[in-house]
Amino acid sequence: MSQLQRLTIAPAQISGSNIRLTPEQQHYLWRVLRLRAGDRLLAMDGLGHCWLVAVEPPDQMQILEEQIPIAPTELPCSVALLIAMPKGQGLDDIVRQATELGASQIVPILSDRTLLNPSPQKLDRWRRIAQEAAEQSERQFVPTVFDPQPWGKALNDWNAGTCDAYLCEARGDRPHLLSILLSARRASPSTKPIAIAIGPEGGWTDAEIDGAIAVGYRVVSLGRRVLRATTAPAAALSILAAALEQDTSSIG
Amino acid sequence: MSQLQRLTIAPAQISGSNIRLTPEQQHYLWRVLRLRAGDRLLAMDGLGHCWLVAVEPPDQMQILEEQIPIAPTELPCSVALLIAMPKGQGLDDIVRQATELGASQIVPILSDRTLLNPSPQKLDRWRRIAQEAAEQSERQFVPTVFDPQPWGKALNDWNAGTCDAYLCEARGDRPHLLSILLSARRASPSTKPIAIAIGPEGGWTDAEIDGAIAVGYRVVSLGRRVLRATTAPAAALSILAAALEQDTSSIG
Repeated sequence: MSQLQRLTIAPAQISGSNIRLTPEQQHYLWRVLRLRAGDRLLAMDGLGHCWLVAVEPPDQMQILEEQIPIAPTELPCSVALLIAMPKGQGLDDIVRQATELGASQIVPILSDRTLLNPSPQKLDRWRRIAQEAAEQSERQFVPTVFDPQPWGKALNDWNAGTCDAYLCEARGDRPHLLSILLSARRASPSTKPIAIAIGPEGGWTDAEIDGAIAVGYRVVSLGRRVLRATTAPAAALSILAAALEQDTSSIG
Repeated sequence: MSQLQRLTIAPAQISGSNIRLTPEQQHYLWRVLRLRAGDRLLAMDGLGHCWLVAVEPPDQMQILEEQIPIAPTELPCSVALLIAMPKGQGLDDIVRQATELGASQIVPILSDRTLLNPSPQKLDRWRRIAQEAAEQSERQFVPTVFDPQPWGKALNDWNAGTCDAYLCEARGDRPHLLSILLSARRASPSTKPIAIAIGPEGGWTDAEIDGAIAVGYRVVSLGRRVLRATTAPAAALSILAAALEQDTSSIG
């Protein structure tokens, strides 16, 4: 099972064995994924082609070989789950369900209301759970579980410059995640990575929400009921995966 | 917190203090919910009105009093989760998440591949979990947890005569639940109850699927990945609730 990161590109970016990166992709590869010259990843054109490439900062990737197309159990674009650290054992279940539901990256967030820094053992445990869950759900990729990080730092990396970014707020007078996704896709089908942020038990603080809005997050609702911190990410990813896959489910 | 069942009616069914039941509603009240003359329930017109009524077989309900409108944490129609009994403790988590996600009825199914009859203590436990989860998620209603029943019996009660009925099959070449829900709602917004059936770890048998199709179930997919028996109901209910609430989330 490969642990390579994936990047969706437009066919027009390819010339010969060279792929030219957009400014957003450059930010994503160097700043978010922190790749270095020569690192490998999988580039996909969303049309069933897939290449193993080596990255060449600042703005290119070199095609090494064409691969068997990305298998149909993966979502059509990369989805990062930014999840405020819940109390107790909660992240075990979250990592397991998020992996089953197709997340590519899981980023534990040290938010204002749940500032507990987990032990390195915990981190190893979550990575093992992601590996097992990826195998059980027959995925081709194991999601990357990042080191826990403060919200401010995460917003530097996952924001409207690099992704379509959504922040879920418990109820409140916000448009529903599904409405936003469906109308965004009608307006312009995008292969941009997606980031979705889920708050802690007590919700995000106003300052945290303002910080996210300032870097281009859309604040959305997951519906009218109060969801526990372990159920909210499953709900958000179920809705996200359904919106991304609904048109194509009968192809697989 | 009320444990009354709810029924959505059309305004045209009301004359004076009397509500005339459609044949589908009669089947639902007498055969599925097994109500008797004089039993009470809440009738809603989907426009913000809500009445406490007493049922009068065979085809009427009597309005007793108008109630404070149904609170905005409830789904706009009744949703029954028919869930094949998983192994081990799995149903605890399923009952908890299904309650948070808005299910009105939870029906454990003794399917061909998971024929284990739970003890009465288990049933009490699930009902307690539903009660607690309804309180935590600030719902107005506690879902009814039914006695476990064979699939054939469940199909007598939950079928196209009484509900919009969906059966989820692991992957396979089926249309996505979300596509079906969105196109059904575009065609004719319905206040009919919904039933959604989720199979056991090994999936439904062919005979079980054929039995469901014969009574009007639509067979649908939840996406391309293999979901565990505890994740599949959360995914199905998240998608269902989102499809039902997406247009109205900013009203609450």
